[in-house]
Amino acid sequence: MKKLSIVKIGGNVIDDNRSLKEFISEFAEMDGAYILVHGGGKVASQIGALMGIEPQMIDGRRITDAETLDLVTMVYGGLTNKKIVAQLQAQGINAIGLTGADGNTLLAHRRPKKEIDYGFVGDISAEGVNIDLIQSLLQQELSPVFCALTHDGKGQMLNTNADTIASVLAVALSEAFEVDLVYCFEQPGVLSDFEKKTVIAELNSSNYAEFKKEGVINSGMIPKLDNAFDALKAGVKTVRIIHFSDLKKNVAGTLIRL
Amino acid sequence: MKKLSIVKIGGNVIDDNRSLKEFISEFAEMDGAYILVHGGGKVASQIGALMGIEPQMIDGRRITDAETLDLVTMVYGGLTNKKIVAQLQAQGINAIGLTGADGNTLLAHRRPKKEIDYGFVGDISAEGVNIDLIQSLLQQELSPVFCALTHDGKGQMLNTNADTIASVLAVALSEAFEVDLVYCFEQPGVLSDFEKKTVIAELNSSNYAEFKKEGVINSGMIPKLDNAFDALKAGVKTVRIIHFSDLKKNVAGTLIRL
Repeated sequence: MKKLSIVKIGGNVIDDNRSLKEFISEFAEMDGAYILVHGGGKVASQIGALMGIEPQMIDGRRITDAETLDLVTMVYGGLTNKKIVAQLQAQGINAIGLTGADGNTLLAHRRPKKEIDYGFVGDISAEGVNIDLIQSLLQQELSPVFCALTHDGKGQMLNTNADTIASVLAVALSEAFEVDLVYCFEQPGVLSDFEKKTVIAELNSSNYAEFKKEGVINSGMIPKLDNAFDALKAGVKTVRIIHFSDLKKNVAGTLIRL
Repeated sequence: MKKLSIVKIGGNVIDDNRSLKEFISEFAEMDGAYILVHGGGKVASQIGALMGIEPQMIDGRRITDAETLDLVTMVYGGLTNKKIVAQLQAQGINAIGLTGADGNTLLAHRRPKKEIDYGFVGDISAEGVNIDLIQSLLQQELSPVFCALTHDGKGQMLNTNADTIASVLAVALSEAFEVDLVYCFEQPGVLSDFEKKTVIAELNSSNYAEFKKEGVINSGMIPKLDNAFDALKAGVKTVRIIHFSDLKKNVAGTLIRL
């Protein structure tokens, strides 16, 4: 089976031009086929503030109303995505920027209104991934660069969490590839002590449960890690959570196993 | 030789949701392979105004400074492009939105600074078109949707006139296809009398020269028509300038011949 790396970079890497440049030169030197998935970063909020778009919150949850959707479609799908694609092209990587609407690569469903109406937010599962097209792009030595946008197939763009997109892509493509899913961010890995930057070198189902019980793992990491375990259960070979400058190191950050 | 339609839509069609919807349903019913190219429209200026970005002009020429480039990258490459792609997907067309950086489809050169420094503006010729990739996308029954953005291959996005992109694509792809280049806008064709909406049914090199001498043709049409004649000379089969709702009619608007 061929190898495929699916690399997700977080907002803090994107926001800082120096970090982004460092990441991109590391990424460009990786071997084999790869897909990049990027989140948003602060730039969407900054541009939203300039435009007078107030972040919408209900019960502490972020809501994607119509104008916020336009904002993230512009910033994630336009500004950020094309900045990354152009920089990868300069490194000799034939990157192609995609939202889920492009080539119907990621078909999602608008999240049903229950207690909260999240607005234009899309939920996606591995069934929504256009595996054939993505495989064909990879065969042509193109490197897809996905942003945090999907569509519903009925003309509506949707805002979808980039971590989820990365793990859903990993699960769908593990049918055809040996997938290494890598979450890159500004910390050296999953930390057991934030002050001392103590990295948990390996997480498995049992020590993860313990760490959660002890409250050792930062609550912001929990959805990412739950996603990671789900991806492993669904056939993804490895999941790693690493610092964005450690992409080429085989032993770095946190390795997650079942 | 296979047929390929390259259709450019103007800003006024994009700005009006009803016009855009009407255009898209016409476009979706066309036969054969096609590429769509779209310009900007007023929405970029409107968002720019909200963000406090002043249009930059030198000697009456529009300049693309760094913040204007970010603005058009967001609006053309994000908001407008994805709106069109999502709507085409809803009509069963497997559209894929592209800037010139995506898949290195359109490699341009930054316009040299002479009397005027136009800023981040890219000039492109048929040599800059990645014919192989575009052909391969068309073979996979994908419909590329280009916006008015190219790149320089060194990490820089560039603003490039959408009419030029359409004609350069037409010329480059006429090696492999019988290309019909169609400019769609909000008028019924090239007009000899704007008030009476009298359409010039056919333009050729000789009556075009006369019309220009008499000052009959609106000066805003001249660059578009010059582009059209250049495209014909370089091998494009037909060029038509039509109303956006006349896409499916074979006899409509202005037909341009050498």
